[in-house]
Amino acid sequence: MAAPTDTPRQSENVWAQASLLIKEDDLRTLGLRAFMGLGLTEADAHDVCSILLLADLFGLSTHGFSRVESYGERLLSGGIRARPQIQAKRLAPSLIAIDGDNGVGPLVGIHALREAMRAARENGMAMALARSSNHFGPISPYSLIAAEAGFASIIGSNATTTIAPWGGTDARLGNSPLGFGAPNPGGEPFLLDMAMSVVARAKIRSAEKRGEAIPETWATDAGGLPTTDPRAALDGFLLPIGGHKGYGLALMVDMLAGLFSNAAYLTHVKSWVDSPDEPQNLGHFFILIDTSRLGSTSWLAERMRDFAQILHDSPPARAESPIIVPGEIELGKMAAQRRDGLRMPRDVIELMQAHAARLAPQQ
Amino acid sequence: MAAPTDTPRQSENVWAQASLLIKEDDLRTLGLRAFMGLGLTEADAHDVCSILLLADLFGLSTHGFSRVESYGERLLSGGIRARPQIQAKRLAPSLIAIDGDNGVGPLVGIHALREAMRAARENGMAMALARSSNHFGPISPYSLIAAEAGFASIIGSNATTTIAPWGGTDARLGNSPLGFGAPNPGGEPFLLDMAMSVVARAKIRSAEKRGEAIPETWATDAGGLPTTDPRAALDGFLLPIGGHKGYGLALMVDMLAGLFSNAAYLTHVKSWVDSPDEPQNLGHFFILIDTSRLGSTSWLAERMRDFAQILHDSPPARAESPIIVPGEIELGKMAAQRRDGLRMPRDVIELMQAHAARLAPQQ
Repeated sequence: MAAPTDTPRQSENVWAQASLLIKEDDLRTLGLRAFMGLGLTEADAHDVCSILLLADLFGLSTHGFSRVESYGERLLSGGIRARPQIQAKRLAPSLIAIDGDNGVGPLVGIHALREAMRAARENGMAMALARSSNHFGPISPYSLIAAEAGFASIIGSNATTTIAPWGGTDARLGNSPLGFGAPNPGGEPFLLDMAMSVVARAKIRSAEKRGEAIPETWATDAGGLPTTDPRAALDGFLLPIGGHKGYGLALMVDMLAGLFSNAAYLTHVKSWVDSPDEPQNLGHFFILIDTSRLGSTSWLAERMRDFAQILHDSPPARAESPIIVPGEIELGKMAAQRRDGLRMPRDVIELMQAHAARLAPQQ
Repeated sequence: MAAPTDTPRQSENVWAQASLLIKEDDLRTLGLRAFMGLGLTEADAHDVCSILLLADLFGLSTHGFSRVESYGERLLSGGIRARPQIQAKRLAPSLIAIDGDNGVGPLVGIHALREAMRAARENGMAMALARSSNHFGPISPYSLIAAEAGFASIIGSNATTTIAPWGGTDARLGNSPLGFGAPNPGGEPFLLDMAMSVVARAKIRSAEKRGEAIPETWATDAGGLPTTDPRAALDGFLLPIGGHKGYGLALMVDMLAGLFSNAAYLTHVKSWVDSPDEPQNLGHFFILIDTSRLGSTSWLAERMRDFAQILHDSPPARAESPIIVPGEIELGKMAAQRRDGLRMPRDVIELMQAHAARLAPQQ
């Protein structure tokens, strides 16, 4: 493996010193060796890295290889099983239950996705429900893999509780991600990947640092009342999009991902921070639709092209911000980073190298 | 049929004079005769009324029998076909295409729901995609019917364009409704039914009447820029929940309901107001999951009970507003109105009576 190239630019000295430029293939190889160093088989490490690499290529750095830190801690402490026996059971022709056996989340996720795609190929559509899993990365990598194989997808996961029920005063539901993808035979797929909060906590922290008030739709204080004070918001709870609407959507995702899959749900989901040795028993769902059953490839290509064009043709309110279709930003970043390499935090690369060094030299 | 009882109360004189109290059975009978007067068969009129009656029982009066006005106009002008030949085609074991033949929306919706439930019973889950349809009422009645038969559901429809693309300046997508339901063998089902805008236009109109500013997350002006001026907002566009997130969700619903079903989508959806004689070719989707395949009735009942209790047990931020689970308000209204009768606008009842009068006396 070639050593990552260190290319600081004058205009971004601080970040450049804390980061490295690394080629996609080199990052994949390093990731593979890191997860093998953490005890995974080569095939399983390959599956995990396929999701985390796409996350970093998409620019979703908080959900990419930076997770080697938390995944690694849990793998080494036994809080996640390095060699799980993942089981798939067909409950019905189009319904599959996956038991992740407390494996690394993206590994369980990839297994569930494959089983759902297989059943959807046979029956036009199918759903896999995964239990006994862990944080499975962002959703858009799964949606892309599905779209490239001709499947539309609706995918979701539950998560550690950070949001209060609408009008409530303590964290009882997760900021559950929900994603949707659609194949586009003539161009780039549609990829939507969203959590249920109006903003991430990081945005409230930034406002606090700048000494600015926040909109009262972002968060509540510790008493559950909307606040414009970022300090009070950080002691309180993130608000879901559309208030009671996002609350309802988050519950829908947890029912599908957690309640129906026989995983944990709501406050039964254990926190990695508070209970590092206990399995989280997270749940995910994967609904797959075989678009080749709906019409010909040219039919779908023409409709997808037209759909995007109608949106792009709306004159922008601000000339510098043309209309985008979900997925464009991520796929654009992927193309650029495949060409130019990925800029990764130095400490993430060093941690991956440390885990890779656990491997015997001949491996 | 008994005549509707007129029971004005002193405290609500104006509304009381403009409204009537009517028993559920009498409203159903009147609705049946109204739609038969508009040319539907008795069986089809029964299907349509089953949805609109549930809408009124739930308190969703804008989506209940008040729609007799717009549905009736279109039926009489030939813009909707009174005697459609609705066709169902199995594209795959779990994938069904419904051609609504430009029938009344709730009739097409009920057909699609039934086909989806049949296929989901066989295969664990299934999806019906309906094209050539019209406004199909609210979603929660379909979700309730599905839940009472043991199915969880994800249901959506596209709609006339009223929302601008995120950052755009003209209406190119609909305020598409999305709903979710889950059966609860030991209690009341979970019912979520939401459109994609932060608020309905009616709420902006109320703010204008009161001379109040609106939050800048509600709407844009005609130039596509967020505004706090209700007058400017009424000339502009509703904003989706969570900004770009709700924009993405609305697109997801239109892809599933319109693009995949071979119906119209985005600006191809014709407006009832601008093109009264042209078929709208709306699309809907119905994803059904047979929960009896996931576990026993007692397993599901216990998990649903526990899920709701965890939410209810969060201490409320405002003592007068206890935590609710989606569906509770609507199901509570239904129970009350089944007991006490439904309060309906007098003009809606009179219009229904006028349509019913088109029937020959012996019918």
